Amino acid sequence: MDLYKLNRRKSLKQIGLGSAAILSGLPTMACAADDSQRKSLGVALVGLGNYATNAIAPAFASIQHCHLAGIVTGTPAKAEKWKKDFNLPEKNIYNYETFGQIADNEDIDIIYVVLPNALHAEYSIKAAEAGKHVICEKPMAMNAEECRQMIAACKKAGVKLSVGYRLHFEKHHQEAMRLGQEEVFGKVRFMEGGLGFRVRNTQLWRLDAKLGGGGAIMDLGVYPLQAARYITGEEPISVTAQGYNTAPDIYKDIYESINFQLEFPSGALANISTSYGYYLDRFRAASERGWFELNPAFNGTGTNGVSSEGKMEFEKVVQQARQMDDFSICIQEDKESRVSGKEGLKDLIIVDKIKESIESGRKIALL
Amino acid sequence: MDLYKLNRRKSLKQIGLGSAAILSGLPTMACAADDSQRKSLGVALVGLGNYATNAIAPAFASIQHCHLAGIVTGTPAKAEKWKKDFNLPEKNIYNYETFGQIADNEDIDIIYVVLPNALHAEYSIKAAEAGKHVICEKPMAMNAEECRQMIAACKKAGVKLSVGYRLHFEKHHQEAMRLGQEEVFGKVRFMEGGLGFRVRNTQLWRLDAKLGGGGAIMDLGVYPLQAARYITGEEPISVTAQGYNTAPDIYKDIYESINFQLEFPSGALANISTSYGYYLDRFRAASERGWFELNPAFNGTGTNGVSSEGKMEFEKVVQQARQMDDFSICIQEDKESRVSGKEGLKDLIIVDKIKESIESGRKIALL
Repeated sequence: MDLYKLNRRKSLKQIGLGSAAILSGLPTMACAADDSQRKSLGVALVGLGNYATNAIAPAFASIQHCHLAGIVTGTPAKAEKWKKDFNLPEKNIYNYETFGQIADNEDIDIIYVVLPNALHAEYSIKAAEAGKHVICEKPMAMNAEECRQMIAACKKAGVKLSVGYRLHFEKHHQEAMRLGQEEVFGKVRFMEGGLGFRVRNTQLWRLDAKLGGGGAIMDLGVYPLQAARYITGEEPISVTAQGYNTAPDIYKDIYESINFQLEFPSGALANISTSYGYYLDRFRAASERGWFELNPAFNGTGTNGVSSEGKMEFEKVVQQARQMDDFSICIQEDKESRVSGKEGLKDLIIVDKIKESIESGRKIALL
Repeated sequence: MDLYKLNRRKSLKQIGLGSAAILSGLPTMACAADDSQRKSLGVALVGLGNYATNAIAPAFASIQHCHLAGIVTGTPAKAEKWKKDFNLPEKNIYNYETFGQIADNEDIDIIYVVLPNALHAEYSIKAAEAGKHVICEKPMAMNAEECRQMIAACKKAGVKLSVGYRLHFEKHHQEAMRLGQEEVFGKVRFMEGGLGFRVRNTQLWRLDAKLGGGGAIMDLGVYPLQAARYITGEEPISVTAQGYNTAPDIYKDIYESINFQLEFPSGALANISTSYGYYLDRFRAASERGWFELNPAFNGTGTNGVSSEGKMEFEKVVQQARQMDDFSICIQEDKESRVSGKEGLKDLIIVDKIKESIESGRKIALL
């Protein structure tokens, strides 16, 4: 397995795409490499639930630098259907007992973990140990400590780690980053909004604290938390949060709704809400001399944007496709993903403190 | 003075417009009275600052049941200008030394207090003691205790008390009340928004805690607080709040920005922001099966509204004119104003608790 990893990594470098090659002074096409010189990397999806089936699988139709090469599923019927639909060879179909054998499969370069949150760390670490690069769906893990373990495992294995923060590849969000970080309307002073959907199906793992990690704040809250961070380009210095539950028979060990407030070093504030009890999907930033808003902001079907200067006009992109393409390029150019594990860790540190603030009723300093 | 009050009140009842007449079984036109049978009541404005000059004075052009009958000002040049502009008799021009004499002026039925917040209670009580009905601008007073004193003084004097909550007379806000209270889209689950403007002129009394009572939360925050209460038709059961200040040289003894969260008995939540540091002027309610939003929501130049069923189409009204007309009718029909002192008291109770929550860092129960 070590030998395989070495060989595969070496082969990438040999075609001039690794930073080691650049640093060594050897001729390289890394930065100038056009798409035709890039390898299409093989992706194995782990967990064939709703998001894998309806968001990631269709994205492969629009991908340039990756392809669906394998699957890991515990459901034989799903294995059969995907094998047929995507013309996958039998040898690239795994279940959770055979998962370890994926290390020996040269068709698989990237393992994309789309499992319930409680399994993100375990399978991301297993993937790294199998010598595969890792994309892990958001939230990256159940807590910051798991994120650190995942980062350490990937570092040790010499593989790259990315979090499924698809909105970094969405053009309205990229414009919001520009308007905020470049202070196009002056400094951002205030952000409000959030993400909520009415989710009351107690059969869903998302509603189970042991599998989901805490309901809406894990599943949905990381989106507006991300937005507040990437619009300001800053890390918050304090957080306060409040948890509410109107239906404890449904939301048994999670909060139905969480509001949280962030304070940034520049003085920017955010007042954010996330819920399984109500619909909310927008995010607005008020800057010194203008404002901008994403509405709808976060759901997968499409973002719109408007600012104090008018409607944003951007094409819709297949976010998951652009994200996988970007990760493939990062791997081949030996660059860190813009949505690396460190980015996921930063969010989980804050989420941990949000939970702490709810329980203590106190403002928590983030250092 | 007591005799005057008695006579004036009696005279209204004698023309069949008092509830006492209804209760006595005498013939009355109280409820059926058409406008032609109502008296136009005389209003004296106390404090001729920006709001009196630019919002209330122009409203008299659209008023049916009141008229500007007098003024109270400490600035002789203003007295001269208003006297001329509004053709006021010299005897109806008062300053703060002669204010008490207003009791003897039969031209004045209503005293409208438009002074800095710290003077609301004092002059509302003086107005009541002079036997005049009172409209007091928002916030009703510096704190709940002052509100109680004002209510008691008006009760003792047998005069009516109203707070300048002009948006109760604005059609988009009335529609929001209907959509919320009548559960047109099901129960309201969440509200977000607020009111903020960039206010950095340290010469303004609004920035002085001793005169304004606490900056934006007093001046602006009562609007979204009101909205959360009148959209749900409920009183909150808890409040949490956070105060922030990025410019302590400007906001010396007030918070620049306050975020506060309300929890209602039905489970509805509100996440509200108010600030002198940034622009924000919208309010959104998410109900079980739809949503509605006022945007802009609170500023005096006009409200727009949209819901999950489309744009609200309502005519713009002169809110201050409709409010004064309504108060005149309430006085003549001996009905309590929909924006009575009790309504102002309810808000100040919550504002007091918002301040307490900021200082303690705790959720405060509202009983």
